[in-house]
Amino acid sequence: LVDKRSARWAERVFVIEGVELVRAALDAEVVLEGVYVGAKGTEHSEVADLISRALGCGLRVYDLGPGVLERVADTVTPQPVLAIGAMVDVALDRAVSAAGLAVVCVDVRDPGNLGTVLRTADAAGAAAVICCGGTVDVYNPKTVRASAGSLFHVPVVVTAEPLATVSALSDAGLVLVGALAHGGDDYTSIDWSAPTALVLGNEASGLPEALVAQLDRRASIALEGAAESLNVSVAGAVLCFEALRQRRARMQAPTRSADPVASTMPEMSEHGTEAGPE
Amino acid sequence: LVDKRSARWAERVFVIEGVELVRAALDAEVVLEGVYVGAKGTEHSEVADLISRALGCGLRVYDLGPGVLERVADTVTPQPVLAIGAMVDVALDRAVSAAGLAVVCVDVRDPGNLGTVLRTADAAGAAAVICCGGTVDVYNPKTVRASAGSLFHVPVVVTAEPLATVSALSDAGLVLVGALAHGGDDYTSIDWSAPTALVLGNEASGLPEALVAQLDRRASIALEGAAESLNVSVAGAVLCFEALRQRRARMQAPTRSADPVASTMPEMSEHGTEAGPE
Repeated sequence: LVDKRSARWAERVFVIEGVELVRAALDAEVVLEGVYVGAKGTEHSEVADLISRALGCGLRVYDLGPGVLERVADTVTPQPVLAIGAMVDVALDRAVSAAGLAVVCVDVRDPGNLGTVLRTADAAGAAAVICCGGTVDVYNPKTVRASAGSLFHVPVVVTAEPLATVSALSDAGLVLVGALAHGGDDYTSIDWSAPTALVLGNEASGLPEALVAQLDRRASIALEGAAESLNVSVAGAVLCFEALRQRRARMQAPTRSADPVASTMPEMSEHGTEAGPE
Repeated sequence: LVDKRSARWAERVFVIEGVELVRAALDAEVVLEGVYVGAKGTEHSEVADLISRALGCGLRVYDLGPGVLERVADTVTPQPVLAIGAMVDVALDRAVSAAGLAVVCVDVRDPGNLGTVLRTADAAGAAAVICCGGTVDVYNPKTVRASAGSLFHVPVVVTAEPLATVSALSDAGLVLVGALAHGGDDYTSIDWSAPTALVLGNEASGLPEALVAQLDRRASIALEGAAESLNVSVAGAVLCFEALRQRRARMQAPTRSADPVASTMPEMSEHGTEAGPE
C-alpha cells in the first residue's frame, strides 16, 4: 500500500488504521478510496457495523486474506480494518484567514508528537495546524493514530519554507508567538487574545535563529525541578490551553475589563459561588 | 540483559540507554552496576568522555562486540552506550510526607505517556509520581527514554492497590483531585494551592468508579473543536501547570489576597508593566 512518504504524496492518499479512526474519517466525510477488512475482521461486531455503514455510503470494501493486513499495517498488533483516504490538507490561505489560534510546527520530527499536537490543537479550539520545514509527514501512520481523529477535524496545512509561512501569517495580521525553552517572556504574561500563530520548533534544537528573529513575542514556560525542558507536544499544550483560558476569561467578563485575565477574579468566575458568601 | 518486566524486578535493575540518559543517571548519583559500550561507541567523543567519567567513579565499563548492543537495546537504531542501574523508586511514606503536588498514575498503559508524565511532573515541580494499579512498568525502556532523565529527578513510588494508595495520601492530608474527561469542575476553578494528589487514569477508560468515589474534587478540561479527549500526558500537563500557575500567582501577592488567582490581576502581576500606564 502506501507505507512510504513519497508513495503517499505521489498518490495523495494515506492509510487510516482501526475502527475508531475509520469511523472518525466517515464522520468527517473524508473521501475514502476503499475499506480493507482483515481475515477475521468481521467477527468484531463494531467492524461489521462499520462495514455496513461504509457500504451504505457507496464505498468499496475489500476482504483481505489471512496475513495480508498484518503485512501492510503499521502496528505490531494490527487493527482488523483500515481505509485508504484522500489527503485532507488545505491551502495556507484558509488558515491565514481564520481568526483565533493557529499552531505552526517547524521541524517537529517525532510522528507521535505531531499527532499529539494535532489532537491538542483541535481540543483547544485552534483554527489550523500548519506543518512546515523538516516536520514529519502529517500522514505518517503514527501521526494519524496519535491525532485520534483530529487530523480530520482541524484544518491542516502543509507548506515547505518556514520563513515564508510565518511571513504570510504575519502579513495576514496574526501575532507570531514562538515557544522557546529558555529566555522568552513568561507565557502567562502574554496576551493570547489577539489572533495568534503559536510556533513550535524541533524537539532537540528548538526554533531556527532566523525564524526567532521574525517573532513578535517569545514565550517560555519557567520550569521547576531538574527537568531541562518539556516535550514539544506538552509545551504546545500548556501554551494552547493558557491561550484558551485567557480567551474564556475574557468572554466571561466582556464589559468589566479588556484585560484577558481579569475575569479570573473570584467574583467574576462562573464558579464564583465556590468562594462562599461575601 | 533485563528486557522484561519480571527480569527487571527479580534483579531490581533496569536498562538506561544512550549518552544523555547515562549522563543524567551519573548526575543524579543513580547506583550503576555497569556501563556497556558498543563496538564503535568510543568513536563518539561524548561517549569517550562519558566512559572516562564512569571509570573515574569506579564503575565497571564493558566493551561489547559488534552486534551485541543492537540485540539488547530497545531502540531500532541503538545508542552507542547503555548502563544497568539499580531501581530508584522510594517508599510511599516519602511521597506522603512531601508538600505540594503528587501525581498518581492509575492504569496508565502507554510507556511513552508514563515517561512524559514523569518529565512533566518534574518540570512542574511535583514532589512525587506514584504508579499504581495497571500502570505500565516505570522501568520500561520507552518510559525511561520518554522521561528524559526525570525518572532520576522526581521521587517515584510504585504501589499495587490504587484505593489503598489514595487513602494513604488522603490520610496524610493531601486533597485528592482526579482528572475526568467529562463532568468534573472546570480545572481553572479548582484551588490547587493546598497539598494535592492529582490522579490520572487509563488512556481509554479513565479512572475506576470506586476510585472516583474517593475523590475530593473532579477536574475536567472543557474542550473546543471536535476532539473527544486529550492524551493523558497532555491532560496531566495542563493540570500540573495550572497548579503551578496558581502557586506562583499566590507567591507573588501573599499579602494582597488569599485567593490563588487574584494576583493574575494586571496591577499585581510581575509583568503588569506591559499593561501600559494606568
